[in-house]
Amino acid sequence: MTRPIAVIGGTGSAGSGLALRWARAGETVIIGSRDSARAEQTAEAIRKRAGENARVSGMENSAACAATDLLVLTVPFEGQAALLKQLKPAIRPGSILIDATVPLAASIGGRASRTLGVWQGSAAQQTAELVPKGVSVVAAFQNVSAEILNSDTNEYIDCDVIVCSDDPNATQITLELAAKIPRVRAIDGGKLENARIVEQITALLIGLNIRHKGHGGIRITGLPDSAYKT
Amino acid sequence: MTRPIAVIGGTGSAGSGLALRWARAGETVIIGSRDSARAEQTAEAIRKRAGENARVSGMENSAACAATDLLVLTVPFEGQAALLKQLKPAIRPGSILIDATVPLAASIGGRASRTLGVWQGSAAQQTAELVPKGVSVVAAFQNVSAEILNSDTNEYIDCDVIVCSDDPNATQITLELAAKIPRVRAIDGGKLENARIVEQITALLIGLNIRHKGHGGIRITGLPDSAYKT
Repeated sequence: MTRPIAVIGGTGSAGSGLALRWARAGETVIIGSRDSARAEQTAEAIRKRAGENARVSGMENSAACAATDLLVLTVPFEGQAALLKQLKPAIRPGSILIDATVPLAASIGGRASRTLGVWQGSAAQQTAELVPKGVSVVAAFQNVSAEILNSDTNEYIDCDVIVCSDDPNATQITLELAAKIPRVRAIDGGKLENARIVEQITALLIGLNIRHKGHGGIRITGLPDSAYKT
Repeated sequence: MTRPIAVIGGTGSAGSGLALRWARAGETVIIGSRDSARAEQTAEAIRKRAGENARVSGMENSAACAATDLLVLTVPFEGQAALLKQLKPAIRPGSILIDATVPLAASIGGRASRTLGVWQGSAAQQTAELVPKGVSVVAAFQNVSAEILNSDTNEYIDCDVIVCSDDPNATQITLELAAKIPRVRAIDGGKLENARIVEQITALLIGLNIRHKGHGGIRITGLPDSAYKT
């Protein structure tokens, strides 16, 4: 990527795991957090793990949005809408916002293996309603195990990333970003509305993890090689 | 299996594909159809393909239900509820009914890459409401490509079957039935309510098939070996 990647909510395990992988791939990453000191701490921890040349900084979320036009949102569903309303003035026109949010019922004290119904169809479609006009929303990265992303080996990464967006250019950039994670294959999953299914898969995987004690992921089989960006 | 497997709606491509695979595995299979002559035709075609020793017969759906207590339902969603109401008197107490139905929007003239909301949560949960008391409903086999099941090679079978049921015994029998299909791994997916997610995955795969021109399936990765019945 020629531009920095800002991971909003990047101090959480999903966000910092993605940031770690992109930092290792040589990308410039900004960790965003409500608390700039925590963002800097996480950035430093990632720099230590990703190597001396890693380009990772930490900023308050609004500053992170203002600093680039490639945003990845990794916050719990219960914080998503309020955060987006707060960040709206800071998000640059023409930005790409990649949303990894899943509306788990855990957000309201329920189970992480169940989801909430979102009026717009999915967490990502809710996001599309809340961002400034001209910002392209992409749904992706919901199904990748945070624990595995945060590990020091590539061995356990065994997951495809399904990318859904109504903007083909934003899809393309996200496919490339996903393929920078070792062993991940990225697949164009069509329109943003399809995020509703991909988000549900996370709840299924969480249920399987609880039942079988694993770190479940999914692979899509049976598509021609051209369907997989690696 | 010690008992015959009746595939209700077994003249369709999904049903006859499953029947073919089970016949090849040495199971006794009954093809059920509204029309007993069509059922017998399909049974004969499967016998020819599965080999001379294959045990496959054809019957009208009600007769098929009366002949065994292991039923697999493979009908389009638009026909599901009416058929179950009709078959209710014929379904034997204590039967296991495995439902492969997906509530595709194609049922009402919409897209096969979208689903309908089912009041009960999923097509399988609707089925659970419609069967006689004491019949155990299992959701499974929604995501396996009918075209691949119907092929003469095992080469392209690359799919896991997620089995959801509230009856552990029915889950176990279905896991074994799924594992009889070459290269399929069967996974206990927990309660029947989880079928709502597994059913959605079919719509996602259909969308991917249209977009990328393939025969998509899914594999669940990252679970311990004990989670996979093969």
